Amino acid sequence: MDIDPGLFQENERTASEQLPLILRTGSYTTDSGGFIQTVNIAYMTFGELNLNKDNAILVCHALSGNANCQQWWDRMIGPGKPIDTNRYFVVGVNSLGGCDGSTGPSSVFDDGKPYGSRFPMVTVGDIVAVQGRLRESLQIESWLLVCGGSMGGMQALEWSVRFPSRVRGVWATASCAAHNAMQIGFNEAARQAIIRDPKWQNGDYDSSDPPIQGLAVARMIGHLSFLSESAFAAKFGRRLQDKQKFDFTWSPEFQVESYLNYQGDKFTGRFDPNSLLVLTRAIDYFDLKSLQGAKAKFLFTSFTSDWLYLPEQSRQLLEMATDASLNATWKNIEVSYGHDAFLLDSEEQGNALRDFLGILEA
Amino acid sequence: MDIDPGLFQENERTASEQLPLILRTGSYTTDSGGFIQTVNIAYMTFGELNLNKDNAILVCHALSGNANCQQWWDRMIGPGKPIDTNRYFVVGVNSLGGCDGSTGPSSVFDDGKPYGSRFPMVTVGDIVAVQGRLRESLQIESWLLVCGGSMGGMQALEWSVRFPSRVRGVWATASCAAHNAMQIGFNEAARQAIIRDPKWQNGDYDSSDPPIQGLAVARMIGHLSFLSESAFAAKFGRRLQDKQKFDFTWSPEFQVESYLNYQGDKFTGRFDPNSLLVLTRAIDYFDLKSLQGAKAKFLFTSFTSDWLYLPEQSRQLLEMATDASLNATWKNIEVSYGHDAFLLDSEEQGNALRDFLGILEA
Repeated sequence: MDIDPGLFQENERTASEQLPLILRTGSYTTDSGGFIQTVNIAYMTFGELNLNKDNAILVCHALSGNANCQQWWDRMIGPGKPIDTNRYFVVGVNSLGGCDGSTGPSSVFDDGKPYGSRFPMVTVGDIVAVQGRLRESLQIESWLLVCGGSMGGMQALEWSVRFPSRVRGVWATASCAAHNAMQIGFNEAARQAIIRDPKWQNGDYDSSDPPIQGLAVARMIGHLSFLSESAFAAKFGRRLQDKQKFDFTWSPEFQVESYLNYQGDKFTGRFDPNSLLVLTRAIDYFDLKSLQGAKAKFLFTSFTSDWLYLPEQSRQLLEMATDASLNATWKNIEVSYGHDAFLLDSEEQGNALRDFLGILEA
Repeated sequence: MDIDPGLFQENERTASEQLPLILRTGSYTTDSGGFIQTVNIAYMTFGELNLNKDNAILVCHALSGNANCQQWWDRMIGPGKPIDTNRYFVVGVNSLGGCDGSTGPSSVFDDGKPYGSRFPMVTVGDIVAVQGRLRESLQIESWLLVCGGSMGGMQALEWSVRFPSRVRGVWATASCAAHNAMQIGFNEAARQAIIRDPKWQNGDYDSSDPPIQGLAVARMIGHLSFLSESAFAAKFGRRLQDKQKFDFTWSPEFQVESYLNYQGDKFTGRFDPNSLLVLTRAIDYFDLKSLQGAKAKFLFTSFTSDWLYLPEQSRQLLEMATDASLNATWKNIEVSYGHDAFLLDSEEQGNALRDFLGILEA
């Protein structure tokens, strides 16, 4: 598939304009031994739950997403889309540790100040455990599908082994069973950009003066890993930024420099630096050894140009499912966008998902 | 070729212990219009110039290298090595804009303070132009070979078109005619890590308190791009750093985290933040359109696992040489190290170079 540079303009995971609903729940003790007195779970729903309550789909977000899945995954979710909100009851949920309504490091602690350094490290297991409370509250016996890309895919996988009888289908796209050293390395460089910003203050920064420069650099590192070389070439090449020739200053000479700085700066307006630390660690910790015990059917999709979450890692997921005698399919999709393909490709991913939903509903 | 993790231990471009010689030269006006009153050129020599003065080889360094090429390229240069110092007169030179003896932003200006922001932007053309003065001073009619990897390869290419009659052979390894958008993007993220460090002070930082945190993050970004995924996997995998289980702190949990932080912090002891800015911009500006006018023979080498300087970019160099009716060879070497392969692979690269030197001396 050829690259349409225009597509990338929509890849702007802006803050949700609609406010999510908040489910207030009790305390939770994390895998790391931390205690959270009150766990809020932010979620949004699209479409209607049918009488049999068997058309519910849970959508888990990637690192910087939120509960408004119809917004950030508009190519996949909506009326007439592969996840058709005229047909399914779609629930988007913000992850524990995030900063869009669910309890996280920027949430207010007992003393009226943000948790900051007092927020415990969380795991993907913790994130999914508290999502289980949302399922109970919504009185959904089992999800038709739990799905997500990247970090969201890890949550979907975790659902299948943590709550086997609550999940009939899992779709994990551009995801993996465990980060490899290079994936951890990219996350660590991003974390250090924040941790080494003097304003971070060991996590207890002034919320009116957070380490935005470090966060911007962290986001730039992220964006480097989201696109493929060919996507960068198609979108920017060596084109200059609003100039005919170099002006030999430190301001952007090339369009790609301007793009990365723009993405970095924009991110600081909507994301909490500590949430980036907590969530990147959660996905680095994730290490699914087996799908034994799962009962769901599985769809894995990957993208040939994704050099961060390798197709080989999706192939390994297929192998894990097969080893556990589970019904599973893997589609390796040839598009050139890189890791962001899971947000940008509606066509081939959409077809694979429609087929999979057909199997789940058969 | 399988990966020997031990190899990487030597990939530590430590500061030269021997002091380089310094050639003091007159003023220079850069392509950017900047004026430098006195240009110092730091260099080191290995082996002896023969009576015919036809055995001289110039070695240009990559981003963080220096004049002590026998140290940082010890797999290629030394007695009995492919660039045999018993046979050739080898000259290593520190680039203009660097920080190991040649004039750069940390050099002292008229007022006794470092140039800092007063140091002009330089191009690869500028770097090679002042190297021409070193050739004159050494009274070498023409180099048998000008060579280098990555940024060093760009300098070797520039020599062939700027001083066609002064170069008989060019070897550019893991290099390219022009950075693509992704290469510029990695450099920009590294630059922003420095520029957004409050200690940078628009380039006029206190030399006793430089922006080392930003420089460390910049170096971490660099190291992410120097190795391949398979090299990271072989060297680190998901092994933990001096612990049996996660301790859920922000200190390194994984070995790869420790490695990146170590490399970042170590770099701050030997490299000037402004030099990193100036030299990364020089290589981003580089845009060789043609080899027309060159007279040298060319050897291009690339590495299948190098995802930063793509083999395709070396293939394009071969095409440029062929278009200019020049004698040229391209070898795409199958090793798994990534970009750092040009420093680590002695065998296949060495054989290709020995063959090429044989042709040059025939």
